Amino acid sequence: MPKILRVNMTTKEVKFEDVPEKYAALGGRGLTSQMVLDDVPPTCEPLGEFNKLVIAPGLLSGTNAPSSGRLSVGGKSPLTGGIKESNAGGISSQKLGSMGIKAIVIEGKPSEKGSYMLKLSEEGAELVAADDLAGKGTYDVTKICRERFNDKVAVITIGPAGEMLMPSAGLTNNDTEGNSSRYAGRGGLGAVMGSKGLKAIVIDCNKTFDAPVQDSDAFKVAAKKFTKILLDHPVCGQGLPAYGTNVLMNIINEAGALPVRNFSKGRFDKANDVGGEKLAEVAKERGGKATHACHPGCVMRCSNVYPMPDGKVCAPIEYETAWCFGPNLEISDLDVVAKLNYICNDVGLDTIEAGCTLGVLAEAGVIAFGDGEAAIKALEEVEKGTPLGRIIGGGSAVAGKAFGITRVPAVKGQGIPAYDPRSCKGNGVTYATTPMGADHTAGYAVTANILKVGGHVDPNKSDGQVELSRNLQVATAAVDATGLCLFVAFAVLDNPEGVPTIVEMINAQYGTELTPDDVIALGQQILKVEREFNAKAGFTKADDRLPEFFTTEVLEPHKTKFDIKDEELDEVFNF
Amino acid sequence: MPKILRVNMTTKEVKFEDVPEKYAALGGRGLTSQMVLDDVPPTCEPLGEFNKLVIAPGLLSGTNAPSSGRLSVGGKSPLTGGIKESNAGGISSQKLGSMGIKAIVIEGKPSEKGSYMLKLSEEGAELVAADDLAGKGTYDVTKICRERFNDKVAVITIGPAGEMLMPSAGLTNNDTEGNSSRYAGRGGLGAVMGSKGLKAIVIDCNKTFDAPVQDSDAFKVAAKKFTKILLDHPVCGQGLPAYGTNVLMNIINEAGALPVRNFSKGRFDKANDVGGEKLAEVAKERGGKATHACHPGCVMRCSNVYPMPDGKVCAPIEYETAWCFGPNLEISDLDVVAKLNYICNDVGLDTIEAGCTLGVLAEAGVIAFGDGEAAIKALEEVEKGTPLGRIIGGGSAVAGKAFGITRVPAVKGQGIPAYDPRSCKGNGVTYATTPMGADHTAGYAVTANILKVGGHVDPNKSDGQVELSRNLQVATAAVDATGLCLFVAFAVLDNPEGVPTIVEMINAQYGTELTPDDVIALGQQILKVEREFNAKAGFTKADDRLPEFFTTEVLEPHKTKFDIKDEELDEVFNF
Repeated sequence: MPKILRVNMTTKEVKFEDVPEKYAALGGRGLTSQMVLDDVPPTCEPLGEFNKLVIAPGLLSGTNAPSSGRLSVGGKSPLTGGIKESNAGGISSQKLGSMGIKAIVIEGKPSEKGSYMLKLSEEGAELVAADDLAGKGTYDVTKICRERFNDKVAVITIGPAGEMLMPSAGLTNNDTEGNSSRYAGRGGLGAVMGSKGLKAIVIDCNKTFDAPVQDSDAFKVAAKKFTKILLDHPVCGQGLPAYGTNVLMNIINEAGALPVRNFSKGRFDKANDVGGEKLAEVAKERGGKATHACHPGCVMRCSNVYPMPDGKVCAPIEYETAWCFGPNLEISDLDVVAKLNYICNDVGLDTIEAGCTLGVLAEAGVIAFGDGEAAIKALEEVEKGTPLGRIIGGGSAVAGKAFGITRVPAVKGQGIPAYDPRSCKGNGVTYATTPMGADHTAGYAVTANILKVGGHVDPNKSDGQVELSRNLQVATAAVDATGLCLFVAFAVLDNPEGVPTIVEMINAQYGTELTPDDVIALGQQILKVEREFNAKAGFTKADDRLPEFFTTEVLEPHKTKFDIKDEELDEVFNF
Repeated sequence: MPKILRVNMTTKEVKFEDVPEKYAALGGRGLTSQMVLDDVPPTCEPLGEFNKLVIAPGLLSGTNAPSSGRLSVGGKSPLTGGIKESNAGGISSQKLGSMGIKAIVIEGKPSEKGSYMLKLSEEGAELVAADDLAGKGTYDVTKICRERFNDKVAVITIGPAGEMLMPSAGLTNNDTEGNSSRYAGRGGLGAVMGSKGLKAIVIDCNKTFDAPVQDSDAFKVAAKKFTKILLDHPVCGQGLPAYGTNVLMNIINEAGALPVRNFSKGRFDKANDVGGEKLAEVAKERGGKATHACHPGCVMRCSNVYPMPDGKVCAPIEYETAWCFGPNLEISDLDVVAKLNYICNDVGLDTIEAGCTLGVLAEAGVIAFGDGEAAIKALEEVEKGTPLGRIIGGGSAVAGKAFGITRVPAVKGQGIPAYDPRSCKGNGVTYATTPMGADHTAGYAVTANILKVGGHVDPNKSDGQVELSRNLQVATAAVDATGLCLFVAFAVLDNPEGVPTIVEMINAQYGTELTPDDVIALGQQILKVEREFNAKAGFTKADDRLPEFFTTEVLEPHKTKFDIKDEELDEVFNF
């Protein structure tokens, strides 16, 4: 029987609970968001005793459904003040799914100082003192835990940024090789974990694909079919496995939607220097990997392992990170980008938020655009907890407020990722309206806007963007519940067999009789749950807007503004 | 005929406009709030081109109605994101009233860098370059302008904090003696002025009590009666004139409602060392003044002039400032308090917000409670614009977010003043619900809670607080429209002749036939206007709440929590 593991950090009580009927059919984001709505007072202090951190594998995690090992982490965000689900690769989700752990709930808040580790194995779970890990970077924590236990453990941990309760601190877990950089980065959930006094969760279990499956024959057939659907698609089967997510750098630049110099321009003449092709070349030269699976069982393998000149390894450099530390800061040195990425991974900070924040600080003149050394020096302040480090850890909106900057690329307090909303307007609708704060993954309209996957909607025009974003947000919420990687969407959008095959896998695993319509309904339901939480937390349609400058400043090269009307934005969730 | 002076900082156009019928009967806060609702897009960037700064004298300003020279400044607040009216003494309001200037509206935003001065006299108005004043403190700016023009001019100015666009920067104007420290401090309107490139407004006009009055005989009778009402009241006629606002220090301490150590305790054993009696003694010893009129024509004279050991003069040290730099930081040295006050006055920062922010930083361990030198050193960073200075200028909520502090005494992003809401619960209701963000002046329930003026409502119980705050918020909004000092309320609440006499003065001046009921209706209308703006800006009842720790932590000595229910708070504006 699947269980919920509940850990009370006030009393230090650790217990396994039966899964209430209400949660039985939920997983991943579907489960975290529902539990957060049910159990967290929406107006509570995000770093206080009433917030909860919910960690849940997806419905298909722990099976050998391809690319099904994504982990969902939920709670009230200290960055946005709203509900948050942040999604990561790594080896934890498959292990939790295999162990029948439906969710880990971290609640309460210790009155005393001190760091704790939650140790979880098939024998049970216990909280142990972990003051020896306090203040350590995520690389060290992971290494120490792998040495102390064994090299198969999954280590979910926070860095000093999370311990220092910085609103853009993430939490991470490791890949198969032990690289501690599969981040649930966005929205500050690392600070929530830090506020609970929990430094790490160690999952000591060798299982990976051992989740119970009711009809294993049917499951195998469906999983095989789904693998073929993925591999047959040009993006999932060819583009992503060749150059990883950073293959987007030149594509988005060519489209004129690459945010350059804190969203001042849409193209960067040195984009190729930090793009996926170049990354693959350098990584291979140095004995790294141009393609890599972020979690066991992934067939798209869109990640990478980048050896740095100092001998350390940054794994991976994703497109959004390469963008935020590259073109966003007018930096074109991939080694500088890798170094900034590595610092974030180690100190435990969301790279996108850190990059947006450095962009705001460059706008304020604290560092210069194009000055990689200054950016590195600034980011190194985070670990020291200096006032500048605190501002960086506070995120782009805090930096903007402190420095009086009006060009702050953030929605609901969360920084806008690597696609300018003026020339990728479908993403603009998603940034504005998703309950998560600006988030490209919540409704990735780059598909139809730029990649011409799932149809084509002109990225520079307003027509059709609301519908596009709506459909993608619904589909994404459902995908995020399954534990499947969002990137399966490329294939699913282009192949009518995609969704039915996902449904076949779920039905075979759980003995259910869901239809594709039920999946749409699930996605809609998740969004409703999230919006209900946010409404109770005080969010209104005034929060579903882009920053003013996107509506007043023209973006080159297409001379676009974000011109989708407020009334249209308010129609995104009209279901 | 009265005029509105409109200054467009984009085009540099300066023009006098007739007053639309809609605004004819409005003044002070009534006018600023209505104009902000009418002309400022509620979701606009507070420091952007669409926000406007509206400066308006009260309806009675420029007459010799006693204590009628308060100035209202309005706009969208960069601190709270909502509507703001901030209210100051000084000599500007009487001059503007005498000149028939109904309001000055500063709008637009220059595309180029540079500082400007608006020069206003009876001959007209012009914008002149003022780069020589850029970066200067408010004391210097005022001195330079008084030397350049004459020593009768009113100088409305911002300090470096406003120029640096800090969200807790205020704007100030001078008293009769030229002290530049009559602040419209709260809510960051100094940053709004800074965002427009406007460093100073110089009003060169010798008139003080020359506003046109239709029935001057009736006015004289009413004004004389109102003066007597004030002088006959023990608070207005005796308490305030003897020791000023800081007479409250020992009273609030005795009541157990003095917030000590960032709202951790309700009493401070050294309160008397920074109280009004002590202040009066030291000020007189050093040749200062224990009593002083903040604006011409005030009969309560509750302000002071405090000579500091270094030969400089801090004028005044108000109670809330003495509290926030004193007991709030566990500092008991009046000279340290004066120094902190002086730094804020000069750099252009709201003292209450600065004190609350230092309290948060002490909670974070950045400075130590009780360490006056450390507090001074920290506050000196503001002028330098260092990261720490930026955090301080960002206000208590920004500091709390950067340092991961959950005990942040702020509502709607604005710091809570000098009365703990757990043992002055009527003020707690006001802090939570006023559209202004935490503001003691918006509904000063200290009256009935502690001073037993206008009845008595037990400050430690929840009964009757909502009704008390509601009535006071309505009355205050009306008073703030007249230009009368809020402190007339002490007398007005205890004397049934109070409100009718105010109405008599207004009717005599404007030839109207208002009744006391109309005054109540005006107060209600102002609050509705302000709440409409805030609702459109995205505020909901979730914003009408106190910080969580006031509901969970017990305050000594009365062992109180803030226990007024959310549903009751939502009934404050049920008219």
